[in-house]
Amino acid sequence: MRPSRRAPDELRAVSLERGVVKYAEGSCLVKFGDTHVLVTATLEERLPPWLKGQGRGWVTAEYGMLPRATLERTRREASSGKQSGRTVEIQRLIGRSLRTALDLEALGERQITVDCDVLQADGGTRTASITGAWVALADCISWMKARNMIKTNVLRDHVAAISCGIYNGAPVLDLDYAEDSSAETDANFVMTGDGRIIEVQGTAEKTPFSQDEFLALMALAQKGVARLVDLQKMAVG
Amino acid sequence: MRPSRRAPDELRAVSLERGVVKYAEGSCLVKFGDTHVLVTATLEERLPPWLKGQGRGWVTAEYGMLPRATLERTRREASSGKQSGRTVEIQRLIGRSLRTALDLEALGERQITVDCDVLQADGGTRTASITGAWVALADCISWMKARNMIKTNVLRDHVAAISCGIYNGAPVLDLDYAEDSSAETDANFVMTGDGRIIEVQGTAEKTPFSQDEFLALMALAQKGVARLVDLQKMAVG
Amino acid sequence: MRPSRRAPDELRAVSLERGVVKYAEGSCLVKFGDTHVLVTATLEERLPPWLKGQGRGWVTAEYGMLPRATLERTRREASSGKQSGRTVEIQRLIGRSLRTALDLEALGERQITVDCDVLQADGGTRTASITGAWVALADCISWMKARNMIKTNVLRDHVAAISCGIYNGAPVLDLDYAEDSSAETDANFVMTGDGRIIEVQGTAEKTPFSQDEFLALMALAQKGVARLVDLQKMAVG
Amino acid sequence: MRPSRRAPDELRAVSLERGVVKYAEGSCLVKFGDTHVLVTATLEERLPPWLKGQGRGWVTAEYGMLPRATLERTRREASSGKQSGRTVEIQRLIGRSLRTALDLEALGERQITVDCDVLQADGGTRTASITGAWVALADCISWMKARNMIKTNVLRDHVAAISCGIYNGAPVLDLDYAEDSSAETDANFVMTGDGRIIEVQGTAEKTPFSQDEFLALMALAQKGVARLVDLQKMAVG
Amino acid sequence: MRPSRRAPDELRAVSLERGVVKYAEGSCLVKFGDTHVLVTATLEERLPPWLKGQGRGWVTAEYGMLPRATLERTRREASSGKQSGRTVEIQRLIGRSLRTALDLEALGERQITVDCDVLQADGGTRTASITGAWVALADCISWMKARNMIKTNVLRDHVAAISCGIYNGAPVLDLDYAEDSSAETDANFVMTGDGRIIEVQGTAEKTPFSQDEFLALMALAQKGVARLVDLQKMAVG
Amino acid sequence: MRPSRRAPDELRAVSLERGVVKYAEGSCLVKFGDTHVLVTATLEERLPPWLKGQGRGWVTAEYGMLPRATLERTRREASSGKQSGRTVEIQRLIGRSLRTALDLEALGERQITVDCDVLQADGGTRTASITGAWVALADCISWMKARNMIKTNVLRDHVAAISCGIYNGAPVLDLDYAEDSSAETDANFVMTGDGRIIEVQGTAEKTPFSQDEFLALMALAQKGVARLVDLQKMAVG
Repeated sequence: MRPSRRAPDELRAVSLERGVVKYAEGSCLVKFGDTHVLVTATLEERLPPWLKGQGRGWVTAEYGMLPRATLERTRREASSGKQSGRTVEIQRLIGRSLRTALDLEALGERQITVDCDVLQADGGTRTASITGAWVALADCISWMKARNMIKTNVLRDHVAAISCGIYNGAPVLDLDYAEDSSAETDANFVMTGDGRIIEVQGTAEKTPFSQDEFLALMALAQKGVARLVDLQKMAVG
Repeated sequence: MRPSRRAPDELRAVSLERGVVKYAEGSCLVKFGDTHVLVTATLEERLPPWLKGQGRGWVTAEYGMLPRATLERTRREASSGKQSGRTVEIQRLIGRSLRTALDLEALGERQITVDCDVLQADGGTRTASITGAWVALADCISWMKARNMIKTNVLRDHVAAISCGIYNGAPVLDLDYAEDSSAETDANFVMTGDGRIIEVQGTAEKTPFSQDEFLALMALAQKGVARLVDLQKMAVG
Repeated sequence: MRPSRRAPDELRAVSLERGVVKYAEGSCLVKFGDTHVLVTATLEERLPPWLKGQGRGWVTAEYGMLPRATLERTRREASSGKQSGRTVEIQRLIGRSLRTALDLEALGERQITVDCDVLQADGGTRTASITGAWVALADCISWMKARNMIKTNVLRDHVAAISCGIYNGAPVLDLDYAEDSSAETDANFVMTGDGRIIEVQGTAEKTPFSQDEFLALMALAQKGVARLVDLQKMAVG
Repeated sequence: MRPSRRAPDELRAVSLERGVVKYAEGSCLVKFGDTHVLVTATLEERLPPWLKGQGRGWVTAEYGMLPRATLERTRREASSGKQSGRTVEIQRLIGRSLRTALDLEALGERQITVDCDVLQADGGTRTASITGAWVALADCISWMKARNMIKTNVLRDHVAAISCGIYNGAPVLDLDYAEDSSAETDANFVMTGDGRIIEVQGTAEKTPFSQDEFLALMALAQKGVARLVDLQKMAVG
Repeated sequence: MRPSRRAPDELRAVSLERGVVKYAEGSCLVKFGDTHVLVTATLEERLPPWLKGQGRGWVTAEYGMLPRATLERTRREASSGKQSGRTVEIQRLIGRSLRTALDLEALGERQITVDCDVLQADGGTRTASITGAWVALADCISWMKARNMIKTNVLRDHVAAISCGIYNGAPVLDLDYAEDSSAETDANFVMTGDGRIIEVQGTAEKTPFSQDEFLALMALAQKGVARLVDLQKMAVG
Repeated sequence: MRPSRRAPDELRAVSLERGVVKYAEGSCLVKFGDTHVLVTATLEERLPPWLKGQGRGWVTAEYGMLPRATLERTRREASSGKQSGRTVEIQRLIGRSLRTALDLEALGERQITVDCDVLQADGGTRTASITGAWVALADCISWMKARNMIKTNVLRDHVAAISCGIYNGAPVLDLDYAEDSSAETDANFVMTGDGRIIEVQGTAEKTPFSQDEFLALMALAQKGVARLVDLQKMAVG
């Protein structure tokens, strides 16, 4: 039995609210249960120096948590003067995942910066961030289309992400913090709308896992992502 | 005529929503029009080293802005590796203001950290932060009372803050960004529920101002703070 | 009775010594009693990037304290790797105050950097810095005039600053450290030669103060600044 | 055809040389072809503060590259003042992987720090690091056993790692830099001696990949790791 | 002919003014011509962690330059966030030099921090700093003796320092900036009152130098230091 | 008797192995007994900003130690976020020493960066670094000649370095760690192939030394450097 009494393949309540911030070209408040992330997409007519003059654009991501998004207060990274290893890992993952789904040539020599700020954390902040970031990105692309800044299709496919894990010996979908902190194994899957894999990260928290266990997690993730992609379609539809 | 068509002594729509974050001992989402700040109060049974063993507690504040809280994206301070001078100034102001309203001996050897994170900025983020921080702090104190951690009254009085300025030659209350960026003079007042001053900061943005102008601003602030204190009473009541 | 036996409206012995450093375009060793600040003004034919090509110049300030300027040694900021919040606040105040008194268009596309380094601190280092900085700035402007670099008048008016506070229940002018550390309330006024206000910062150190108390402080400041402006006139005359 | 003319399931020449550094409790110079990593294991009778008094030990890892380990010189991280996101990601991966293979209770309240320094990089530095780190760790454990510092078996199993990728449409094992920089997909597998998975990271560099492609990579990795474990046995045997 | 018309073995005008700062246990304003350094010695009843409980004290030094001590303004190290390599080198030299002259056991478990802050720089700031630091240190030791904190003699001997160089082919003593910036060779000698060497640093700025040239510099230094030691005796006498 | 049983004027076994790194334009693994340093020379067609357009090139050096190059593990500088004072001092010394031996005009507007990374440290890492760096630099120059990038002779002379010290009252050459840590006096000499001095640094570790003692050390160094220059000739010959 899961602490939340969910079925093994059951997502938490997911919501994807668009247009939540006044200034950004795209934004989304994404909730996976009690995990709440505010995502904005900022379009800028500039590029990192190493990319200039190559005829393509760039998407990058930054991630942060409000200090009291967590059970105990976490030190503010702006005040400690550096981003933690965990933060760096997550924002690199978000950026890579989104870039794979985009036609950077079609974007033109522009940069989109996706900011994912966790207002409240209850497990799965990186998967919620990616799922919501796709919505903010889609809105930013629509904003550009409405201004005739781009012509061809820039977004190749949906991108969504979900965690799975082995909890009490059984594979379960979309771990909340109670499950995450005691799971034997934990994996994050980033996938496209057509079910292919963009990124997979599996970690044995306590004991190594078998290939079969891994395949069971992958099957769950496939289901979960399909559901998230449906929700994204409804949100931007 | 003000850009927002408000009367000279008219506040923006103010809302003070409590309990917006699951984990914090106190929290408040404060809105002054389009300025939105999420405030949390965190109680910890520890003190800064220089304060240990003196029989009193401490209140400190941190302030941050989400990168796209502003019209153009601001660089994330966690990524640039330092807090800007403006951030440091504001969080010191918030901390000082709250401490003046608290009986630190009655608090006991504990620290309350108030985090003010600006989700959207349209002028007056520091005054909104202080006004909302008082509500989060009051909730944190109630949380402690409910657990018999404190007995006597810790909160001596209300604390609220408002900006005033000379815009197009006339004194006006509660500047939004459109006014703030072109005001001749701009002042922030932090006051108690009984109308006394905790902190006043007046700055001639363009031309120095006379004592009479300053007194006109102070009179407006008095009105504005009285209204904010009423709203605080309704919120915590 | 004040610890220094001064009358309530009596300044400490003030001296403004010009030309104390060999290389700088302007310099002043300012003393407010035992508070000694070495101020230099450096002229450079360059501008911060965000100001280029706008036809106007810039004045900025930096502030520092020698480690043993204080009763107990303070850690050297160059060695700790960052400027304290207090330092940042003070240097921003000095810069803003001086800019208000200058015609930045008339200055041309140049930058003047004012460095205020406290050799010995006995309260009032920021007000002494501003008062001395005006003298260094005036000398720097004279240096430019002597070289025909500017034609019209760049300095619009004098700028001087003084602290006031409520000490033992009575308003007093120009607090030294003994008073400052136990004052109930403490305010800094930056004013022009014609008595208008550039910046005012009042802080209730212990108990909030009334409007009347604040007006009493402002009246004292008016007197003190008038006296400082006289001394500036004698210094540069 | 692979640039190195290797068969799709062929590792590069691998060597694991022990005892290469005079002072360390364990060390290994690991070579995967032209990728050379110097690994040391340092035993210290101290723990990170958050782990004290819990009756178990800790293994942590740090990773670095000499500036000219690469085709073009990379800026020295000690001189730029921070570790790159890539470095942080890799050293966290190495630490997690090694901890899974260790009985931290049996280790006692001690810390082993594994330093992986890349002398020359030709792809696969993280997998070479993990594979060599296990050897250095095993030697460190032997060193402790020889001094009766531990009794029961601390090392539960082997840990080795290998990369796989889809290069020119075909799955290949152990990518060198020429392959890595143009592979469509790229995955790193960390596995135990009995073929279970400790960590898997798959990334679609250009186009998302299917589950079948991923399974083909996993099968290759299984073969590669089995071979590496044989080499580890010969090295420490 | 030297730019200053001094004889080859002639020092600049040297002055050693004691007691120039109100709070420090020892202080000295040292001038070597237009090079002015303010030195303070701070006594603290604490030690660096690695020295605790060994029954001896410590002397350490810090060095800084005011931004406009130089012909062109130098960036403030507190604001750039790090001390330059040059600063670090100099402060380590000062600390080492002073420690050699002190009986650290006799000092007891205390630390003296010597701060050398250059108010104006015209060559030779490190040698002036060391020469003045000895005076400040001597005063700090006297301060301790007057309070019966130490009994035996702590200061074993004088320490003074001077630069020499080959300028226009001839060896000269005590280089000013005009000479220093075009000297072929440049050496700094730190010596005791009895003419022995504590530290010597010789650098070929342009062309390597012979042993004979080096011996000529050493002979000059011997003369110069003897004169400085006389001046120290007069200062503290 | 020296701990290593060497004669007073006997170097440790020295080896200079070239071409040890695949990518660098020049490289050398230098060993002075158990002190092992990997040196690379990197040629880049760019210059530090302050040197552009002056028709000459630049040589700079960076120095680092692997964390476990030493008896006890040293904290990784990349992770602590700054280079230690010792590191900065050493890399400045290496850079200065090499520049003196080079005709920077003949080099053209290019920069050579020499990286010295200590794999194992047993005293004398800076002298080994300089001696090996000359070899790597010579190879880099040959690489350029082979590509007709330079015509005239860029390397004016050899540069090699050795330490000497007074150990148990007697002058000895090439101190290892056992001697270095208990020597009374310690000096490093950087010299050219024709016996002239580029840099000399002598430090009284415990008691000041006389001129005669210093001359004895210089004579030893002369012998040692002559031997090192012979070995450099054999290495590059």
